[in-house]
Amino acid sequence: MNEFDLIQQFFSHANSNRTDVALGIGDDCALLQPKSGNQIAVTTDTMVDGIHFDSRLSPADLAHKLVAVNLSDLAAMGAEPCWVSLALTLPTSDSNWLTEFGAMLAERLQHYGVSLIGGDTTRGPLTLSLTAQGQLPAGTAMIRGGAKPGDLILVSGSLGDAALALQQDKLVALPAASIASLEQRLFRPTPRVELGLAIRALANACIDISDGLSADLNHILARSSAASGELLGAVIDADKLPVSATAVTVLGAKRAALNGLKGGDDYELCFTVSPDSLQPVLAAAEQCNTRVSVIGEINQTGQLAVQYQQQQLDWQAQGYLHFS
Amino acid sequence: MNEFDLIQQFFSHANSNRTDVALGIGDDCALLQPKSGNQIAVTTDTMVDGIHFDSRLSPADLAHKLVAVNLSDLAAMGAEPCWVSLALTLPTSDSNWLTEFGAMLAERLQHYGVSLIGGDTTRGPLTLSLTAQGQLPAGTAMIRGGAKPGDLILVSGSLGDAALALQQDKLVALPAASIASLEQRLFRPTPRVELGLAIRALANACIDISDGLSADLNHILARSSAASGELLGAVIDADKLPVSATAVTVLGAKRAALNGLKGGDDYELCFTVSPDSLQPVLAAAEQCNTRVSVIGEINQTGQLAVQYQQQQLDWQAQGYLHFS
Repeated sequence: MNEFDLIQQFFSHANSNRTDVALGIGDDCALLQPKSGNQIAVTTDTMVDGIHFDSRLSPADLAHKLVAVNLSDLAAMGAEPCWVSLALTLPTSDSNWLTEFGAMLAERLQHYGVSLIGGDTTRGPLTLSLTAQGQLPAGTAMIRGGAKPGDLILVSGSLGDAALALQQDKLVALPAASIASLEQRLFRPTPRVELGLAIRALANACIDISDGLSADLNHILARSSAASGELLGAVIDADKLPVSATAVTVLGAKRAALNGLKGGDDYELCFTVSPDSLQPVLAAAEQCNTRVSVIGEINQTGQLAVQYQQQQLDWQAQGYLHFS
Repeated sequence: MNEFDLIQQFFSHANSNRTDVALGIGDDCALLQPKSGNQIAVTTDTMVDGIHFDSRLSPADLAHKLVAVNLSDLAAMGAEPCWVSLALTLPTSDSNWLTEFGAMLAERLQHYGVSLIGGDTTRGPLTLSLTAQGQLPAGTAMIRGGAKPGDLILVSGSLGDAALALQQDKLVALPAASIASLEQRLFRPTPRVELGLAIRALANACIDISDGLSADLNHILARSSAASGELLGAVIDADKLPVSATAVTVLGAKRAALNGLKGGDDYELCFTVSPDSLQPVLAAAEQCNTRVSVIGEINQTGQLAVQYQQQQLDWQAQGYLHFS
C-alpha cells in the first residue's frame, strides 16, 4: 500500500449512491446493473497538462471540465449519465490539489446524479482521463449518421467564446467581468445533458461541438452520407450563428460569426431535425431553459457552404488563426 | 482533424465484431447492448512510462501487458471480458510504434473475444490507460469480501517470477532462456480469464495478485471481515507456494517462497473455497489446464500468519527488498 493507493480517500464522497451500482470502489472491478433492455453509451476523454490545459486552470476547473467534456459526449447521444471511472496520473500526491479536485468532482457528479465507480491513480506527468457511461433504451440514441436532406440544423447556446478566451491578446481592453465570462466558457463548459435527453426522440442526428462547428458538422455530413449512400451537404447562415455580445464587441459581427463557425471547445450540441419536428424541439429546449438556434439546412450538394447576409462566404480560405 | 485524430486507423482492426456492440468507434459514444439481466464489471488500469515500465518493454509488450492487467481484474470477478476503451497518450505519432502496439492489441483482444469500442489519443508523456468491461449474471460475481472461516486458500500458476525478473543483479549467471522465461512473466503475464469463469460458482472470495500475495490476501481478509463482522485471519504454508524451478535455483527454496509471498505483478488469482468445493474446483482448473495450489486456510485469528515447514515465520520482518 503506497501513498497513491490511499488517494481514493479524496474521492470517497464522489458517489451519488446510485442503486444500480451493485459494487463500487474497492474491489477488483465495480459491478453495475443497467436497466434491462437498455444500451450503454461509453466515452473516454483525456486532458494532458501543457496540451489541453495550462496553469490558468485550477484543480477545481480541471475537475469541472473533465466531467463536462465527457458528459457532453453522452448528451450528444441523448444518454442519461450514470457512472464514471477516473484514471488520474499525478506528479505528487499533493493533498491540497486532491482535496480541491475531489470536492469539485464530487459536486459535479452529484449535480448530474453520476457515481464515480473506480479508476486508477498513478504517479507521473499530470494526465486526467475519464471514461463516462450512460444508459438509454435500445435503438433510441442520436447518432452522427442520421441526418437527412431537408433537415434543419440547430445549435444550442452560443458559439466561439471558448476559442476567443484563448486569444488573450485580443482581450486586453475588456472589462474583467467580460474576460471572466469568456474564461468560464473555456474552463467550465456546461454539457447539454438535459437538452440531449429532451431532443433524443426528435432529432435525426447530433454531435457535440468540440472541434468547432464546421469540423463537427462535417462529421455529421460524412457519417450521414456513408449511412444513406447519398452525398449530403449543408448550407449555414453564418449571420444566424448565436454569438455572445462580448464576441461581437471584440471581433465585430462578421468575425464573431466566423469565430463561432470554427472555434472549438464550446461543448454545445449541433443537431438536425426534420422541419416537422421544429416546433416540438423548440418547446423541448424551452422546457430545459436552453437556447437553440436554427442556423442552416442539410442538402444534397456534397459540401458545406456558408452564407453571410445572403452572400456566399469563402470561409475555408479564412483560416481560423488568420481571419483577424 | 490533426495527426492524433488519425491514429484510430492503427486500431481499426482491434475489433472482434461482437454483435453486442451496436455502435463502435467513430461517434460521440460507443453503444453496447449487455445481455438482459447481466451485471457489468468495470476496471481501469494505467501504465506510465518510467513508473510502471521502462524501455525494455517493446510496444507489443506494452499492449500485451495492458490487456493482461485489466483482464486479470475481470477474471478475479469471474466476468466474461467484452469491451475495452483505450486512453493513449503519446509523445509523437510514431507509426512504427503504433503499428506494433496496434497489432498486438488486436491480437490479444481477438484472443479473448473482446472489442475495442473507443477511447482517446492525445499528445503527451507516454501513458496507457485501459478501461475494460465484462459481463456476468447478476449476483454471481466473486468479490473480495466473501471469505469464510475454514475456507481453503488457493492460488493459480506460480508466484514470484515477475518480481524476480526485476532483480537483474541476481540473474547474471542464468542461461538466457531462463531470463527470458522470467521476463515473459513480467512483460507478458497471462490473465486467468478461463479459470475465473470456471470457479465463479464455486469460490467464496477472489482477488488477482498484483501487489503480492500477502498484500492481496490482506485485502480479502479486510473486506471479508468488514462484510461478516468477524475478525478474519489466515495461515499460509509458505512451503506450499507454487514457485518456479528458476526461482529456486536463483534464491534457494525458502527465499523463493518468500519472494512468491511478497512479490507482485504475477496476475495470478488468489481465491478461497469451502473444503466441500475443493474437488470441483480442482476439476474445473484441470479443465482449464491451469495449475492451482492449496496454500493455506482462512481462520478467525485476525491476522495473516505464515509457516515454513511447520515453523512460524516472522515474515513481515523479512522485508521484500531485504530478505536476501
